[in-house]
Amino acid sequence: MTNIHSTTPCLLLDTARMTRNIERMRTRLQSLGVALRPHVKTCKNIDIARQLTAGQPGGITVSTLAEADYFFEHGMTDILYAVGIAPGKLPAVAERMARGMTLRIILDHPQTAKAVAQAAVELGTRFRVLMEIDADGERAGLRADAPELIESANILERAGCHIDGVMVHAGGSYRCKHIEGMRRMAEQERASAVAAAERMRQAGHEVPIISVGSTPTATFADDLTGATEVRAGVHVFQDLVQAGLGVCEIDDIAISVLTEVIGHRTDDGKLLVDAGWMALSRDRGTAEQAVDQGYGLVCDASGKAFDDVIVTGTNQEHGIIGKRDGSPLNLDRFPVGIRLRILPNHACATAAQHNGYWIVDSPEQAQRWLSRCRGW
Amino acid sequence: MTNIHSTTPCLLLDTARMTRNIERMRTRLQSLGVALRPHVKTCKNIDIARQLTAGQPGGITVSTLAEADYFFEHGMTDILYAVGIAPGKLPAVAERMARGMTLRIILDHPQTAKAVAQAAVELGTRFRVLMEIDADGERAGLRADAPELIESANILERAGCHIDGVMVHAGGSYRCKHIEGMRRMAEQERASAVAAAERMRQAGHEVPIISVGSTPTATFADDLTGATEVRAGVHVFQDLVQAGLGVCEIDDIAISVLTEVIGHRTDDGKLLVDAGWMALSRDRGTAEQAVDQGYGLVCDASGKAFDDVIVTGTNQEHGIIGKRDGSPLNLDRFPVGIRLRILPNHACATAAQHNGYWIVDSPEQAQRWLSRCRGW
Repeated sequence: MTNIHSTTPCLLLDTARMTRNIERMRTRLQSLGVALRPHVKTCKNIDIARQLTAGQPGGITVSTLAEADYFFEHGMTDILYAVGIAPGKLPAVAERMARGMTLRIILDHPQTAKAVAQAAVELGTRFRVLMEIDADGERAGLRADAPELIESANILERAGCHIDGVMVHAGGSYRCKHIEGMRRMAEQERASAVAAAERMRQAGHEVPIISVGSTPTATFADDLTGATEVRAGVHVFQDLVQAGLGVCEIDDIAISVLTEVIGHRTDDGKLLVDAGWMALSRDRGTAEQAVDQGYGLVCDASGKAFDDVIVTGTNQEHGIIGKRDGSPLNLDRFPVGIRLRILPNHACATAAQHNGYWIVDSPEQAQRWLSRCRGW
Repeated sequence: MTNIHSTTPCLLLDTARMTRNIERMRTRLQSLGVALRPHVKTCKNIDIARQLTAGQPGGITVSTLAEADYFFEHGMTDILYAVGIAPGKLPAVAERMARGMTLRIILDHPQTAKAVAQAAVELGTRFRVLMEIDADGERAGLRADAPELIESANILERAGCHIDGVMVHAGGSYRCKHIEGMRRMAEQERASAVAAAERMRQAGHEVPIISVGSTPTATFADDLTGATEVRAGVHVFQDLVQAGLGVCEIDDIAISVLTEVIGHRTDDGKLLVDAGWMALSRDRGTAEQAVDQGYGLVCDASGKAFDDVIVTGTNQEHGIIGKRDGSPLNLDRFPVGIRLRILPNHACATAAQHNGYWIVDSPEQAQRWLSRCRGW
């Protein structure tokens, strides 16, 4: 660890932990008999994506067209763009399909279906579409029994588009208080996708793909009968939100932000470090959980967590570290100049603040760096 | 506006508003007889920094060594690195000074002073240091009457370092409820810096630089006698936090995130757009203000704000837009595919999520793009 020569703050990746996380999800989904289509918005790196897709059919899920381009340039062709398509992006989608990308888009509104149908005709492109289904009223999607589901599919089919299937993401699983809740959410997710596909099949559509998932539901699903693939992303690194949910342990969290102590606040027994929200993100995903981890849980330089020490505040390039209960830290234990690591509330958000990862877990890899793609 | 060909989401910059903001601060500081050392962590772009420093002595303030490098490569040599120096960065500072950068560092702890003194001897570098002074107990700095102030300066002087002055930032000004509070905070900032400098002068140090500032205190200071320079950064773009403080009007905010409507939530009368926290940041700086702007205030594509429409929730690449009072939006006014703009809570945080700016305010510049530097 101490052989990281990078300036602080920087993002560290413990590949041993990451590999364990990847293997655990692989074993789980194998036992459920369903393929993984990893969501690579968490890692945004090709080496990690290759490890995630090893032994899988090879498809990935992305959250931006910039990710689609980056992974395609590195040889990945089967790509689900899992954010409701903005009609303004259809020419860009068509252009990528013409270059050989098997790019699937999602939508949940007849207005979007009409825009896609119109672009299909104008651009001469048979778009590949999954209908987005709502399992929990959390964000987007049509309910499995919504009339707009068949209406939209019919609009698309008349324009020559491929109705490749349905997809669902139970984001509500992130707010469950118990494992039993996540298990029920997984079943709700599965059942709504299967019900929607069933209706679409009765209406004459083929629906080969039934895509479900989130890290919590993938971790606790009892049965995924009917689903053809599971999407999960954050399991690759895990984070404090997942640990708070019971999806992982603190010791599974594979990324952290390396920082250095730059000052002491003797009045209130707090530390100043050189990692602020620019390095940690402003994510406060544990704020509503049983244990609020502030802007991140603090570890020593080797990665061993202090149970009761968190980042209590952030400015752009300043972090303020204190005890969770507000009592003063023994500042003598944290002299100016020592390095600490901070575990993230939300791996996707913290990683997004960085251009890449320093690999830290094996001596021969100590100075290896993995880049991340960025933008839209 | 509609001639922006970029994909959504992207960051727009209205240079007419920006120029007005820059001119307003310039006029103010001229009337107070003090120079501006702009904090370029907000813009992170050389063209904007040149506009900010025009008519000023030319020095800038940065928050990372990556910014220092970027602006130095573009010809700016007088740079204050305004985050307490991490001892691990001293070799990097020495290397930059050897290349001709007039790089000043700050510190507020005798431990840091000792580390700087030791590095000065080991590296043969006469570091240039400002002592960081605390005006409000908000973040960092030594109080003007702290014994550690003279102790630290003496440690540095014995090692041959330059004690170039004092600096203070009244971050507490961001939490003021009234203009009178910001005015008092400006005086508190000025007085603490001047008092600290006076003590250091009595102890035999020269203290040529007395650097004060924040956008709120720079905007409302009555008198800056004794200060040699003011640091302000966010005034270049302004934002909803500044508008909430009374520092600017909503119509002064020069950056916004362009987004496209991707869906409707008919159950609760909300919109889905393709700008989530990745494009907006997770900053909720208006949450504690009188008017909570959610994750940003929504405007039409031309930049005209809807007073009562805000981003109520964000996921990575999804934004949820609704009325501030929770009542349903008239979704017919916002069909799928139209574009909207979102004003940021905190300009520094939102801009940091983007690789650059699209210039939008004059037709001939419509496709001009300004890049931002990034990282540490």
